[in-house]
Amino acid sequence: MQTVSENKCFGGVQGVYSHESEVCGGEMTFGLYMPPQASRGPVPLLWFLSGLTCTHENAMTKAGAQAYAAEAGIALVFPDTSPRAAEAADDEAFDLGKGAGFYVNATQDPWASHYRMWDYVSDELAALLFENFAVDSDRQSITGHSMGGHGALTLAMRLPGRFKSVSAFAPIAHPTRSDWGRKQFSAYLGEDETAWREHDSTLLMHDLGFDGPVLVDQGGDDQFLDLLMPEQLAEAMTARRQHGTFRMQPGYDHSYFFISTFMGEHVRFHAEALGVA
Amino acid sequence: MQTVSENKCFGGVQGVYSHESEVCGGEMTFGLYMPPQASRGPVPLLWFLSGLTCTHENAMTKAGAQAYAAEAGIALVFPDTSPRAAEAADDEAFDLGKGAGFYVNATQDPWASHYRMWDYVSDELAALLFENFAVDSDRQSITGHSMGGHGALTLAMRLPGRFKSVSAFAPIAHPTRSDWGRKQFSAYLGEDETAWREHDSTLLMHDLGFDGPVLVDQGGDDQFLDLLMPEQLAEAMTARRQHGTFRMQPGYDHSYFFISTFMGEHVRFHAEALGVA
Repeated sequence: MQTVSENKCFGGVQGVYSHESEVCGGEMTFGLYMPPQASRGPVPLLWFLSGLTCTHENAMTKAGAQAYAAEAGIALVFPDTSPRAAEAADDEAFDLGKGAGFYVNATQDPWASHYRMWDYVSDELAALLFENFAVDSDRQSITGHSMGGHGALTLAMRLPGRFKSVSAFAPIAHPTRSDWGRKQFSAYLGEDETAWREHDSTLLMHDLGFDGPVLVDQGGDDQFLDLLMPEQLAEAMTARRQHGTFRMQPGYDHSYFFISTFMGEHVRFHAEALGVA
Repeated sequence: MQTVSENKCFGGVQGVYSHESEVCGGEMTFGLYMPPQASRGPVPLLWFLSGLTCTHENAMTKAGAQAYAAEAGIALVFPDTSPRAAEAADDEAFDLGKGAGFYVNATQDPWASHYRMWDYVSDELAALLFENFAVDSDRQSITGHSMGGHGALTLAMRLPGRFKSVSAFAPIAHPTRSDWGRKQFSAYLGEDETAWREHDSTLLMHDLGFDGPVLVDQGGDDQFLDLLMPEQLAEAMTARRQHGTFRMQPGYDHSYFFISTFMGEHVRFHAEALGVA
């Protein structure tokens, strides 16, 4: 693992690190914020999964999360959104290939050799963090934006016991019925739609639910509402009697101005579930 | 004036607007955050002047200031750092020409025709804001980073009565004795150094001081300490018995991670001087 940069921030350290990823077949980069409390022992870890076109950097510089993480004593990890090796397949569209891993393990050529973001986030990067930093594997929560909200919700539901709480900002909520999902799942997972089910938050909410609290924020003026399909997730949460809150926030769009506005409440929501509020 | 974008943010509106600038001889763009309180009447205005290489966008997306401005009910304006017209002179160096206006009115060719950032900020943009937005010209304060901290301090001291308070993050504090200053003042103002004096915060602090409170934060691990010369400003503030605070912050560098860490305290400092704390 190499240190790309470390900047003091709210009394802690905002680092950027790179490492050779076996899972993604090449170098990967991630951001990690360690709060000041980490100097006294392991702290809880909140994962932030980013959306289409993002790298590890967007949320790290624009979401304003470090202020709240420092207050609560929580570490933040910002993984990249896809493999980045030069030889990894790509596509000209912004919503397929690099920057658009969709947090799945691709089974189809030419993607299968590098596009394994599910395993990267849930296994390889997690192990790397617990080995190298003062973060506590028994106290993890997860959040994300858009494609990353989809990733956060699907990981949380399919790995019971792993995360104490899950939240999402404007998640891609029902990808098996949306052009943000069908196109990518066809490419990465193939035409057999039964393999898609386990990557659809709405279907997983009906089938499994989550064994902890859920918080979802959705901007009412989001320019991508038709692709996100939040009403399907809200219906599923309610039908399942899921412990959780779905909030429609009037006037907000899909941008980081929306995310930063509600970031404080999300971090505090997770802090409570993690026992540090 | 054209609206480039408007995003809801912390209950208010983060806007980006462009306009034809007579002073800078071409189109200029600025960011303006209007807090929710502006719907009930004019609010105070805090200027944020940015540093070398920045546009209106850097602080607007990375400083995290909107959270605190919404809390206090203060508008924030983020001007650009130089003229941008295609025909405006430029230089290959990052610290001269576009992105490096240094908040002076150039008197030398080829800069004099467009590089008039002093007049742009103090007159033209100010007038545009008071004409078009619910901001109160009697309640203004100013802050900035690096080259923008230099701009904030020099504008505040040379326009007595205009600003209720001034603060700066890692300002270029003594440009007449630094390579961040001598090079640019030679180009923009000519070789006669007497014209430089009124753009040097340390000299102005000795000569004039500021008729209100001053707050300066400086990172102890700033990679540009030798160019910023903060010790000269600290000496001048103390020698003058200036009402104010100079804080050395150990471990912090020159980045937005430093700025965002202390932004809340700066906004609250200005809110108090503006009578809204």
